[in-house]
Amino acid sequence: MKVLVAQLDPTIGDFSGNIQKIIQTLNDAHEKKIDIVLFPELTICGYPPEDLVLHDSFVISCEEALQKIIPYTKGLMAVIGLVRRNLAKGEKSQLNSAAVLQDGKIVGFHDKALLPTYDVFDERRYFEPGTEFKSWIWKGKKIGVLICEDIWQHAGYVGDTRYTCDPVLEMQKLKVDLLLNMSASPYQYQKPDVRVKVCQKAAKTLKCPVILCAQVGGNDQLVFDGYSVYVNGKGELCQLAKGFQEDLMVVDLDSVSKPCSFTHDAIGDLFRALVLGTRDYFQKQNFRKAILGLSGGIDSALTACIAVEALGKDNVYTVAMPSHFNSPSSLKDAEKLAKNLNVHFEVIPIDNLYETYLKTLTPFFQAKPLDATEENIQSRIRGMILMALSNKLGYLLLSTGNKSELAMGYCTLYGDMAGGLGVIADVSKTQVYLLAKWINQKNEIIPQNTIDKPPSAELRPDQRDTDTLPDYGIVDAVLQAYVEDLLSPEEIVKKYDFPLELVLDLIHRIHTSEYKRRQSAPGIRVTKKAFRVGRRYPIVQKWM
Amino acid sequence: MKVLVAQLDPTIGDFSGNIQKIIQTLNDAHEKKIDIVLFPELTICGYPPEDLVLHDSFVISCEEALQKIIPYTKGLMAVIGLVRRNLAKGEKSQLNSAAVLQDGKIVGFHDKALLPTYDVFDERRYFEPGTEFKSWIWKGKKIGVLICEDIWQHAGYVGDTRYTCDPVLEMQKLKVDLLLNMSASPYQYQKPDVRVKVCQKAAKTLKCPVILCAQVGGNDQLVFDGYSVYVNGKGELCQLAKGFQEDLMVVDLDSVSKPCSFTHDAIGDLFRALVLGTRDYFQKQNFRKAILGLSGGIDSALTACIAVEALGKDNVYTVAMPSHFNSPSSLKDAEKLAKNLNVHFEVIPIDNLYETYLKTLTPFFQAKPLDATEENIQSRIRGMILMALSNKLGYLLLSTGNKSELAMGYCTLYGDMAGGLGVIADVSKTQVYLLAKWINQKNEIIPQNTIDKPPSAELRPDQRDTDTLPDYGIVDAVLQAYVEDLLSPEEIVKKYDFPLELVLDLIHRIHTSEYKRRQSAPGIRVTKKAFRVGRRYPIVQKWM
Repeated sequence: MKVLVAQLDPTIGDFSGNIQKIIQTLNDAHEKKIDIVLFPELTICGYPPEDLVLHDSFVISCEEALQKIIPYTKGLMAVIGLVRRNLAKGEKSQLNSAAVLQDGKIVGFHDKALLPTYDVFDERRYFEPGTEFKSWIWKGKKIGVLICEDIWQHAGYVGDTRYTCDPVLEMQKLKVDLLLNMSASPYQYQKPDVRVKVCQKAAKTLKCPVILCAQVGGNDQLVFDGYSVYVNGKGELCQLAKGFQEDLMVVDLDSVSKPCSFTHDAIGDLFRALVLGTRDYFQKQNFRKAILGLSGGIDSALTACIAVEALGKDNVYTVAMPSHFNSPSSLKDAEKLAKNLNVHFEVIPIDNLYETYLKTLTPFFQAKPLDATEENIQSRIRGMILMALSNKLGYLLLSTGNKSELAMGYCTLYGDMAGGLGVIADVSKTQVYLLAKWINQKNEIIPQNTIDKPPSAELRPDQRDTDTLPDYGIVDAVLQAYVEDLLSPEEIVKKYDFPLELVLDLIHRIHTSEYKRRQSAPGIRVTKKAFRVGRRYPIVQKWM
Repeated sequence: MKVLVAQLDPTIGDFSGNIQKIIQTLNDAHEKKIDIVLFPELTICGYPPEDLVLHDSFVISCEEALQKIIPYTKGLMAVIGLVRRNLAKGEKSQLNSAAVLQDGKIVGFHDKALLPTYDVFDERRYFEPGTEFKSWIWKGKKIGVLICEDIWQHAGYVGDTRYTCDPVLEMQKLKVDLLLNMSASPYQYQKPDVRVKVCQKAAKTLKCPVILCAQVGGNDQLVFDGYSVYVNGKGELCQLAKGFQEDLMVVDLDSVSKPCSFTHDAIGDLFRALVLGTRDYFQKQNFRKAILGLSGGIDSALTACIAVEALGKDNVYTVAMPSHFNSPSSLKDAEKLAKNLNVHFEVIPIDNLYETYLKTLTPFFQAKPLDATEENIQSRIRGMILMALSNKLGYLLLSTGNKSELAMGYCTLYGDMAGGLGVIADVSKTQVYLLAKWINQKNEIIPQNTIDKPPSAELRPDQRDTDTLPDYGIVDAVLQAYVEDLLSPEEIVKKYDFPLELVLDLIHRIHTSEYKRRQSAPGIRVTKKAFRVGRRYPIVQKWM
């Protein structure tokens, strides 16, 4: 028996485009003499469709799309994900379903039973949980179908939730010979192996092979990494689809399955996730070209490398905007990077604009001393120049701030925070350095001086980030402990032996910067807990 | 039997402040010889606490706060809202509970059974639904306690949800003599009467009085209007607490209850909601002073009136920033408004900065013709000037864009969209005019010319909004039909007889402007469906 795992990259709500991909895959399957084709979760409309699901006509479009696909399933079995109406009782009017088709007929549905409602997931907002578990016979095998989260509970890998039902045990009762799981499981740093473990746990319990088909691609802030999984009945990983691209993986269940291992390149995958998130954000909106400012620093250098990989060097426009506060080496570093990447590079000095602002505004400043105001003015002039070029020339502006800065509020609203996409907004400064090193492993793309020099915003003479912030090693440790792992200040002190006062100060900064992040560009989510998507805190609160 | 309805304004996570309010109310109740004190939903931590609930220490703080309050309930019954741990089975580890205290002891809890998970509500993300229904005897009466949504299902007023349980019918089975409901029900335009109807429906079914205690105040984007309700056993409205302020309403169940009516001033309430939302956004963050730009147009005029009412005239700083594109009458109108409101007013012309930008940027514009780029530059110069004054002088910038503009994307990112709070971001242009008329009913505060002249952004010669947009009457009709009521394009055509092409174009604009709104200032929510809070759509999608 041959299973085709159709690891596709659908676009949200692009019914005609998604249907076309599905039909083409089914046609391929016929040619390859495939028995079963497994598609990802919500294949027909893409995941996550968010509030589009609340429009009746959106749901009906899903159901109609399925009808169009039916004829192409003659002679095989296909499992396709869609939103459909819940015509039975229940709180919600929609179901997150897997349609099971055999030989040109719908033979049933599995409705997702475990609906993640935490972090980036809001499925209880839209869907009624399924409560029935079925199996289907195809070519002599009893086949179970589950959707994503349905199999995670069994392995103990769910967040903030203790489901009262375990669909894997339900499959055990049904004595299935093969379990198919359709997923839309977002990438996060170091997660792909977890997905394999989840499949292995189910396979060991069920004593049968488990095949997981994952969505791939970027949809808004989420990136889906692919890496679809085939685990044999002994719980051994035997096949993995490609990461970060569409892939049609054929699993031959009758051939002897040889165990393989998942050699996980964590930093390489992080880079590929950012590239895919950027590329799909552009392509799915029919944008081609990006603009960004190069400061000579490491964040903009990394962002430029990602942009070039995602869009091609001819589609990236870079600008250095020096002021008299910048060291001459910064401009040189920016220029060198642009040369290494072979991208368009312009220099637009900002001193003249800065002076004009000061002349205009000083009479209203009540003779107050220099402070962050003047620094913000410089940053905002740069944001305005980039936005003007973006508007006039049709480039989408990339924002270059990292997660550590956004956590601390060490960034300027409408200045360096300006942009249509925050490419590295969920990448900590520590990870920024790891990525830079990874990029430079063969050749020096990012100038070594950019990597070596101490971080600085260069908005006043001899400024360094450490004037205002502790070392980024400390910031990032607290960031991960508090934001990602929800540890309390006391637990963080215990774990790292930092002074309590320092920890409380950093946590306080995280909360008081919420108002800035609320207006930040959407960022590509790559960690367990990204700001804004999946993390919802009030601006106005007195807890911390 | 006397019930004190403690319509309080808690701050999210301000445990010490909120406890103090509760204890003071209980002390008052003793003096007034009250039998029962009813507090709002989540009194102890404020509503909505969002992801703070996911921190164990936050939940434990709630539980500890309750312990501190217990001694003050000697001799009376009190019903207090809090988050507590769910120690039983169930998906979620927290409960949204009403603690029932009698004579200095906790006698039980009601756990919210119907958990709204739609629009601005995310309760399934945090809470396990309650499944048990109880009553408590106090001074010979059998008393039932429910929380907010618990009684809405019975009257048929819930969104996107068909709950399978009806707590009012459960109360009927228990034969209660009095139903207490603690609420945190956000204000929306023309909603207060619905809340009365919901209570009336429950009272008629139960044939007993219903008392609803509502939270009041602003928390982030939500405004709670108060207007706590007492309906007698015949279902007649007999008492209403004040709107838009804290109130301690005493209901004497033994005196003859006289029906009263709720004379609803829809526009006045809308104004009061915006004032309260603004005031609490400032006060709860310890801000006092606001700055805003006055264009001479109606949106900034209305925003200034709200700011003065919320913060006092001495705390409002206004700036006109004319360019050569502005008609001289605009500056006069701005000046006149500032004079009428008696607020600080400055004039900072922007032509010099505009020319400097053009000089700096033109060499990079590839000889392309004038377009929105130059308009955006003007708007962004104004945003930068206001932000610089905000930074230097410590004023919070108010953004003055209305909902119709945000819907159409007729606004400039980092320009007129800049600000810490979007005061009228959820107010349509149609409502803006109604509010202006309401403000001027006694004296001309907003210059009549501001109201009479056709809307214009004044960013190019003789510009009018209708150059680019249909009449705001059409925009607002489609906005309400599509965004608030989720009608399909075909249904909108049928309802208003607009051409389909026009409707589709407006809907298309709503979706393609999503990326701008994602970076807009948080706006005060006053309608059934506000952008951003309660409305979650992907930026990247091909449905519309």
